Amino acid sequence: MMTISGTTRVFPVIGWPVEQVKAPALFNAYFTRHGIDAAVIPLKVPPALYRDTVRMLMQLPNVGGIFVSIPHKPATLEAVDHVTPRARLAGACNAVFRQPDGSTVGDLIDGEGFVRALDRVSAGAPLSWPDASALVVGAGGVGCAIAAALAGRGIGTLSIFDTRADSASDLQARLAAAFPKTRVTVGTPRARGFDLVVNSTPLGMRPDDPVPVDLDGIAPGAVVADCVMKVEMTPLLLEAERRGCRIQKGREMLIEQAPLYLELFGWPGASSADFRALQAI
Amino acid sequence: MMTISGTTRVFPVIGWPVEQVKAPALFNAYFTRHGIDAAVIPLKVPPALYRDTVRMLMQLPNVGGIFVSIPHKPATLEAVDHVTPRARLAGACNAVFRQPDGSTVGDLIDGEGFVRALDRVSAGAPLSWPDASALVVGAGGVGCAIAAALAGRGIGTLSIFDTRADSASDLQARLAAAFPKTRVTVGTPRARGFDLVVNSTPLGMRPDDPVPVDLDGIAPGAVVADCVMKVEMTPLLLEAERRGCRIQKGREMLIEQAPLYLELFGWPGASSADFRALQAI
Repeated sequence: MMTISGTTRVFPVIGWPVEQVKAPALFNAYFTRHGIDAAVIPLKVPPALYRDTVRMLMQLPNVGGIFVSIPHKPATLEAVDHVTPRARLAGACNAVFRQPDGSTVGDLIDGEGFVRALDRVSAGAPLSWPDASALVVGAGGVGCAIAAALAGRGIGTLSIFDTRADSASDLQARLAAAFPKTRVTVGTPRARGFDLVVNSTPLGMRPDDPVPVDLDGIAPGAVVADCVMKVEMTPLLLEAERRGCRIQKGREMLIEQAPLYLELFGWPGASSADFRALQAI
Repeated sequence: MMTISGTTRVFPVIGWPVEQVKAPALFNAYFTRHGIDAAVIPLKVPPALYRDTVRMLMQLPNVGGIFVSIPHKPATLEAVDHVTPRARLAGACNAVFRQPDGSTVGDLIDGEGFVRALDRVSAGAPLSWPDASALVVGAGGVGCAIAAALAGRGIGTLSIFDTRADSASDLQARLAAAFPKTRVTVGTPRARGFDLVVNSTPLGMRPDDPVPVDLDGIAPGAVVADCVMKVEMTPLLLEAERRGCRIQKGREMLIEQAPLYLELFGWPGASSADFRALQAI
């Protein structure tokens, strides 16, 4: 049973709105199960107050870190002392933690969560990273984080598509500069020839959304990943499954981030399996 | 079972240190038992950051109010928009809440908690307030709050003693100005002739402390109240009991404050009996 006392370490999840966040339920269940004296609590912070609130909270010794939710991820860059390269590249943070010297760091771990989920999905026949090619459809925050994580792993070829052409070319330029070993191009939303296809647009949330990627000609061994979370099996994933592809659901990226958060907050070694079990409760 | 989600209202208890606070355990047990979606959490705030932290927190719509612990009670006067008369008189606040117009109020409810406990202890033979006399020994924060609450109830005579004579005379002057119907004097620590005797010094916490009030000649029907909480039955209370007086323990004042906090925070009608039961858990 969860108990809070004067010794409890506090981890706010900050959003505007904040009512929809799942972190309190998920992490408090984990803390309770593992006897950790910590609590994740929601804080509803308007954008105008966000930066000062983060700075204030991170000066309090029993606040261990912050989960950053919408719409505050970009503004976090201005609220911390240091920004990790992956967060800088994407222009957004979803975690704030403290270094041993007391300075604060903003990090973005959804890309790493995605790649860890991919490792799991493709465990039977792992990607040969330097030879592999990926198509990322959607050059927004999530797409950027995923593309950067794929490049960070050393993927050979990365193709970016966005209906806003300048978003795609802007991301292409930033990735090419940061990861010279990866060939980064602006492409089309056609899956043929790619080993990995990622939908990082919101398309698939609503029943009448168009399918964001043309899967015609995709190899059966390819992996198709969708970042949409509100719908578990999107039309894209259903079609990929019909074509014999391996699929990666949106929530996998989220679940794989949970141990990463704990690691940043000082509890390394958690397993995503713990969180998968808790989610099922 | 306690659960926190994105919709949970948050009530920080702020102290420096904060590890010793009991409010999270007590109020979270109450919230759980009554199905209230709220959580009391500790925040360890250094004095230099206190004022800004309170102002910041009270701008967040899911922060419903603040429990103020040591050493922040006096500084709270500068952290809120309005201060209640009783808090102003004592120069301290132990609760911060929000008015319907969004402005913040600092209040001090320990005096009222004391008087409610007194009502309970003396229920069999209530004080006749305009004729009653009380001796308050200790003119610090707690003594001031209690003296003001007694005067606010209309007690006829109030005698203040403190080993620091100027503390006693300063409080006497402030009370006399605020409550013209009560005769307020600076007295001696001798209980003879008083209907109510209050120890609001810390004496009685340690085994070798002197007894702070001379009970010689006290009437058996009088009430002797001790504010010391670390020791349930102080030497003063033990002697009062031997003399046939009614006694009021330190924690009674605390328990009676619990429903007052809830009332300020928007849940009127709680009973101190609920909290007495929870304390026993």
